[in-house]
Amino acid sequence: MAEVGDYRILHEAALRDHFAGIPDLKALIGGEPAAWGITEVGDGNLNLVFIVKGTRGGVAVKQALPYVRLVGESWPLPLSRAHYEYLALSKQAQLAPGLVPVLLHHNETLALTVMELLEPHIIMRKGMVAATQYPGFVDDITTFMARTLFFTSDLALSAAEKKQGIAAFAGNHALCKITEDLIFTDPYRIAEQNRWTAPYLDGLAAELRDDMELHVAISRLKLKFMASPEALLHGDLHTGSIMVTESQTRVIDPEFAFYGPMGFDVGAVLANLLMAHFASAGHERMPGERQAFESWVLETVEKVWSEFARKFLDLWRAGATGDAYPVTLFAGERGAARLEAERQAYMQRLFADTVGFAAAKTIRRIFGLAHNIDFELIEDPKKRAISEARAVRLARAMMVETGEFGTIADITGAARKLRDWMPEFANG
Amino acid sequence: MAEVGDYRILHEAALRDHFAGIPDLKALIGGEPAAWGITEVGDGNLNLVFIVKGTRGGVAVKQALPYVRLVGESWPLPLSRAHYEYLALSKQAQLAPGLVPVLLHHNETLALTVMELLEPHIIMRKGMVAATQYPGFVDDITTFMARTLFFTSDLALSAAEKKQGIAAFAGNHALCKITEDLIFTDPYRIAEQNRWTAPYLDGLAAELRDDMELHVAISRLKLKFMASPEALLHGDLHTGSIMVTESQTRVIDPEFAFYGPMGFDVGAVLANLLMAHFASAGHERMPGERQAFESWVLETVEKVWSEFARKFLDLWRAGATGDAYPVTLFAGERGAARLEAERQAYMQRLFADTVGFAAAKTIRRIFGLAHNIDFELIEDPKKRAISEARAVRLARAMMVETGEFGTIADITGAARKLRDWMPEFANG
Repeated sequence: MAEVGDYRILHEAALRDHFAGIPDLKALIGGEPAAWGITEVGDGNLNLVFIVKGTRGGVAVKQALPYVRLVGESWPLPLSRAHYEYLALSKQAQLAPGLVPVLLHHNETLALTVMELLEPHIIMRKGMVAATQYPGFVDDITTFMARTLFFTSDLALSAAEKKQGIAAFAGNHALCKITEDLIFTDPYRIAEQNRWTAPYLDGLAAELRDDMELHVAISRLKLKFMASPEALLHGDLHTGSIMVTESQTRVIDPEFAFYGPMGFDVGAVLANLLMAHFASAGHERMPGERQAFESWVLETVEKVWSEFARKFLDLWRAGATGDAYPVTLFAGERGAARLEAERQAYMQRLFADTVGFAAAKTIRRIFGLAHNIDFELIEDPKKRAISEARAVRLARAMMVETGEFGTIADITGAARKLRDWMPEFANG
Repeated sequence: MAEVGDYRILHEAALRDHFAGIPDLKALIGGEPAAWGITEVGDGNLNLVFIVKGTRGGVAVKQALPYVRLVGESWPLPLSRAHYEYLALSKQAQLAPGLVPVLLHHNETLALTVMELLEPHIIMRKGMVAATQYPGFVDDITTFMARTLFFTSDLALSAAEKKQGIAAFAGNHALCKITEDLIFTDPYRIAEQNRWTAPYLDGLAAELRDDMELHVAISRLKLKFMASPEALLHGDLHTGSIMVTESQTRVIDPEFAFYGPMGFDVGAVLANLLMAHFASAGHERMPGERQAFESWVLETVEKVWSEFARKFLDLWRAGATGDAYPVTLFAGERGAARLEAERQAYMQRLFADTVGFAAAKTIRRIFGLAHNIDFELIEDPKKRAISEARAVRLARAMMVETGEFGTIADITGAARKLRDWMPEFANG
């Protein structure tokens, strides 16, 4: 763990000196340190991010700050998150090679991690605002999720290994607490940090605060988030944590990693695709110009679930080395058939969790502290509010009537129907 | 944690020398160490247990062995279990004072714990074989369970405190593994250590090994045991871990403690009461002589659940200081009513878990490695098998058709009906 005593924030000059003293990094970047180009590029909420470029190549540098960057020193946040991010990234690199940035250097004391520079990758969310389609995305993200979730679950690990993993990430509770508050609590009550597209969504915000069925549903999800260590989660798997080119996908920023319910990661991906879909109408300059993109998005929603489920099940069928569902209890043809039916039932339970968590991830982006550019970049607030209201309408149904969404097609079908739905304020 | 290097087994002489050097203990026991009476009384499966008596009083001494006592050195078991037992006992003493033995001394290196001598308490199971009723038991055990489970759950703790607790017990996985194997796996497959009352139960044993619905049910329970850290469990809460007089109850031996599903502890108590009920017929010398006892047992089953649920709910209503179900989301009269309905739903889910785990705890005592004297002391093997077959018939239904048992009266009703049911082999 990082010792706060020896920690210091490395701004440009200090970073240059520090790296000059690390031969491997120096060689990798190339040229004289004095000539390196160093730029701070962090646009996230928590950390400093630098790009360092030399004659040979470049690296990306992430340093944790002892507070939330977005808010300032009044909101302290432990440096140890850099330790957990490093731990998670190492594990992901092992389980899903090629789908996370290559780790080049980690300094625990400085809470500093150096990774390969991803070029010309961009944040996927930005690409989606520009209506870019990513044909390789489904295959990559489902491989990432199926492998990182399956291989850290009770289906693949012994109970002892699993408990070690849980304990190794138990200290990352400050980051979990951010999720617990900002996703599972604050959007449903009066909280200083909440914001939404006023005045259009004022009524809807008040409805959510008064919706006791929704409060029960979000509280059940919160409890599941806190007390269901099914697998090592990324913990923040939205389209802002994914860098892409048209052919490549890299998942970044796993500092929220901990052992939690698998549906939280899968739901995060689905929610962010669905929000991109609902936001798309707001970015339209000519009717129909983003139709192909929108179709691709909903098709992607469907395939993300179906391919994830297929890959996860294949891993289970091929490599059930864990202590759960011991194969010796399902011997013979009849046993195999019964186990296969149970695998399907397991995926159905996971799907229900996914639906609920996707809904929670949607509502927080519209009524909580952290919003996303999918909606934020819609300049006309009324248009933005219309897109957001559609997303919330679906999310509310997904969270409270989860059982009505038995298949992923039930979700995309509902999303399609809501594409042109008009909330009451739209006519005002 | 105990260092194996400095550990040594303390037999009588060494124990005498060791305690002679600890002034507090010496004073408590009283008189010259050479005159102390020291007796090894351990009849459990894992440890050495001594009683040391002097002129002033006595103490109970428990030392972990680096292997399973019942089996020998061929089955090693970490000494660290004494550390977890000490940790759990300390926590239980704080949460349920007066319901666990007073802790007098703990030596981590020697894996040795000294506790008050419980006199004239006896192991509750022995008392029940003798048809003794314990009028204070319901109140004591439900206070113990409600308080230890509630106050270590997400309803009472912050998520950070809860994660610390989970991590603190994560290392006790070797003891969990015993449960995972002996309760949740072996009785359902061919395993060297299994045994049952042959030849009468040969057919039933084969049926269980071939019963795929049961294998799915036990596997779901196993997964819940491994991956649902709801609260700090005792982990082995059968009537052999409870010492009683007619007016006092003390819960002992929490070395299997870890964060797991609450229903596992509650189910353990219910299962052992139900087994005492089914065994009772086998101990009858004259028809009807144990009828009052049997009625008391089933009444106790009902009250253990209803009083536990009442106390747990009262604690929740009065002291919801945890991060789950935040009260700010349930403001006003309507919010309070909805939260109360959710509390009832929570207890209903916990009841379903309890029913399943109670069934698992029953089957393992009849087909697995560790049996209990309720059945074992029935000398006539056919009579014993009849009692066991009745217990298994109920347990199988509880595990596979859990939903059919919506209330505790459904279980005691079924138990009453099975009191005189005859399995096929009884007519052979």
